[in-house]
Amino acid sequence: MPTNTDIAAERANSNINARDLTFTLYGEDGAYRRKLAFERADKDQAFEKSKKFSLMDRDKLYDEAIRMETVVAQRLQEYGYNNSKDIQTFLDRGYFLSAVFLGVHPFAIHFGGFIPSILGQGTPEQIQEFLPKAECMEYIGTYCQTELSHGSFVRGLETTATYDKSTEEFILHTPNLSAIKFWPGGLGRSCNYAVLMAQLVITGKNYGIHPFMCQLRDLNTHQPLPGVEVGDINYKFGGNALDNGYLILTHYRIPRTHLLMKYAQVSPDGTYTRQDVPPQIAYLSMTFLRTILVTASASSLAKAATIATRYSAVRRQTANRDGIEPQILDYQTQQMKLFPAICTAYALHFSGAALQSAYNDILASVGNGDMSRLSELHCLTSGLKAYSDISSHHIEVCRRSCGGHGYSHASGIPDIYQQNVINCTVEGESTVLYLQVGRSLVKFLKKADSGEKLPPALAFLSESSPPQQSLP
Amino acid sequence: MPTNTDIAAERANSNINARDLTFTLYGEDGAYRRKLAFERADKDQAFEKSKKFSLMDRDKLYDEAIRMETVVAQRLQEYGYNNSKDIQTFLDRGYFLSAVFLGVHPFAIHFGGFIPSILGQGTPEQIQEFLPKAECMEYIGTYCQTELSHGSFVRGLETTATYDKSTEEFILHTPNLSAIKFWPGGLGRSCNYAVLMAQLVITGKNYGIHPFMCQLRDLNTHQPLPGVEVGDINYKFGGNALDNGYLILTHYRIPRTHLLMKYAQVSPDGTYTRQDVPPQIAYLSMTFLRTILVTASASSLAKAATIATRYSAVRRQTANRDGIEPQILDYQTQQMKLFPAICTAYALHFSGAALQSAYNDILASVGNGDMSRLSELHCLTSGLKAYSDISSHHIEVCRRSCGGHGYSHASGIPDIYQQNVINCTVEGESTVLYLQVGRSLVKFLKKADSGEKLPPALAFLSESSPPQQSLP
Repeated sequence: MPTNTDIAAERANSNINARDLTFTLYGEDGAYRRKLAFERADKDQAFEKSKKFSLMDRDKLYDEAIRMETVVAQRLQEYGYNNSKDIQTFLDRGYFLSAVFLGVHPFAIHFGGFIPSILGQGTPEQIQEFLPKAECMEYIGTYCQTELSHGSFVRGLETTATYDKSTEEFILHTPNLSAIKFWPGGLGRSCNYAVLMAQLVITGKNYGIHPFMCQLRDLNTHQPLPGVEVGDINYKFGGNALDNGYLILTHYRIPRTHLLMKYAQVSPDGTYTRQDVPPQIAYLSMTFLRTILVTASASSLAKAATIATRYSAVRRQTANRDGIEPQILDYQTQQMKLFPAICTAYALHFSGAALQSAYNDILASVGNGDMSRLSELHCLTSGLKAYSDISSHHIEVCRRSCGGHGYSHASGIPDIYQQNVINCTVEGESTVLYLQVGRSLVKFLKKADSGEKLPPALAFLSESSPPQQSLP
Repeated sequence: MPTNTDIAAERANSNINARDLTFTLYGEDGAYRRKLAFERADKDQAFEKSKKFSLMDRDKLYDEAIRMETVVAQRLQEYGYNNSKDIQTFLDRGYFLSAVFLGVHPFAIHFGGFIPSILGQGTPEQIQEFLPKAECMEYIGTYCQTELSHGSFVRGLETTATYDKSTEEFILHTPNLSAIKFWPGGLGRSCNYAVLMAQLVITGKNYGIHPFMCQLRDLNTHQPLPGVEVGDINYKFGGNALDNGYLILTHYRIPRTHLLMKYAQVSPDGTYTRQDVPPQIAYLSMTFLRTILVTASASSLAKAATIATRYSAVRRQTANRDGIEPQILDYQTQQMKLFPAICTAYALHFSGAALQSAYNDILASVGNGDMSRLSELHCLTSGLKAYSDISSHHIEVCRRSCGGHGYSHASGIPDIYQQNVINCTVEGESTVLYLQVGRSLVKFLKKADSGEKLPPALAFLSESSPPQQSLP
């Protein structure tokens, strides 16, 4: 099909070198790896149907997503995208998956939450036991934290894990309706395992929230095990290829050794020990997800802005004095919609990259026992993750800027919005995060006032500033 | 089921009389009629399934919507809701339909666009011929204006209606891809007729856009007639019970008498005559739809605000110093989301009511031959319709204020958003409308400066004001 002449003219008039820009965005090596992943996905007949996801009902959509997941698993092996400890492989897999699926897929939390939790919370022995089974997908897992009535306030979770010394088991239990595990992705239909957060109780004493490795379904029949009631929570605003689920546990027993014991241990006789580590350590995998969400929001917005800009180059409307209908891209009102969207996509992309770099630096320090920059990391990731909500606003502006055609699923933008807008809620609700960042900034400011040296990202708070102008 | 104790306590603490408020909103008589319509819909077993619309795929959804439409048609007869010329009946039907469907239904444009166009553009003889068949639904119609490449700029439509004197017929034709009729609601699967806007051409001369009564499908077999290619444009962001469609006409002939001739006539010999009426006359039915959209947006926002406020009364999160998790309704950050939404719903409701009242007044003047207030009406309806987009912003804030649960379709808010947000695009794209209002205000301001008396809604422009402060 020949390129639309208006699009061709816009491209010919541009003085931006697309190749240089791509290298700036992804790095030269990264750009080629990304291109390779997209080409592989694009040529692969097995993924043809994913383009029609928005036309399927939920059951068909899920079945098709799972069929694709099994092909994806083969391809990940085949292309060497499967090693979860190498950041470049992680990115390659991300490129490949984003080329195959729009948005979250049924095994997304397996890779993004379950495996990182084993790696982050397990002892070396536990990692050795669980990780290979998770990597070959004998265990398909999710991360179960939120409950029907409990989200942001993690300490308020009600699910209990009571230690039974006589059998060396934990008894996991959902005490009432409000404690039903709710939302975990992949829980509804796909998973046979979960890392599950529950209140640890030993001889009547509550030691707070701890992570438990918990089998939910039979590995052969995929039927829920006795004591486990689990199911799908059905349609959401978006992301319906993902089977978010609910879980009710009734006096359900797991071995003592399934408490992930990197930072806290329970011995066979019920003795509790705990390493003195900052609380942020427990949330490192969530912190990582927050950095990913910033980059993901940049990518979603970039797609929407690209679609809307191309549309605006092709669409002509309302005759001018010469009787010619100009490209709507030439109207100031249209530019006021598109240009901030494009700028914000770049800003979020580079912010996300800087954040991932900071995350890697600080993680390396933590590995060397230096915990001093964890508060800085928490402040940065929370603030930028919350701010990246701005992407949804701009995506919606892009959608509307395409007029009626933006309302059609054929434009692709409704799906992008519906998938992206969950980012303001998951992995830390934005209003809650902003409040945490505010509190954190005040703490840092107090430190600055008392002459303490602030970490790099917050050093600006120590800089002298002109006296504040009085309000009128 | 007993009422949640937190909800019950909030209600007990309120000093607002719900009954008085309802009367203020709808009038005493209106409130009872509305309640009756809702009770009738609610008790009716035939509409049970509409509550599960969001769980159906598109074909099931459409089939179910059509099944319901046939029941609705019976009920409208039965309850006397069918007379389209009486405003109270129009409202009653609206109450009944909004209780039955969420959002637009397949015959919405039949009632909201097709019948009003016959009434507004037809001669008394044409009304007598077409209206009874439309009212008994022998004719199921839509309104075909927008084309694939033509929306806001109506003069740019490309579909032609060329008069053939020899047979006394108009030849309707889609000259190319960009001229395909696109979007009309009900066109895809439901309609057998349309009022279709096309360029009138007589012996080589173009007389501009005119409305034609145009049969599309066989009244018995429902198959497209020869020369008519018609179909569904598939999934949209929302409103998927409605079958928006496309239409390609190939040298398709209709009788001369199917030009709706209230304001412009073509005689058998091809002589063209036109009444000297303001251009706004032709858009009166769109003006009416704009007033309806303001009220509809108030209603959508009120629903979302009610759901979010009730949720915020029930939801408790994050323990305070006393170890109690407060209702999130008591957090200032939550109130900052909910209160503006509630206020805006009221503001839009009363603005919509005032607008409908102004519309009725001005329509009565027009009936008496007084066209002087048409510009005022256009300015008011365009401005308020565009401003009512604010409802979508607040609906989305309400949705997010429910955290994860707002992302679930079970909350009801995703559907409300997806349905409501089309209002910024249909019946005049908001940016285009704002520009028209701006231009109109400048014209009125010039009139005021030259001492001319302005119409009531714009009289404020004549008021003396302090000299403008110079910008810094």
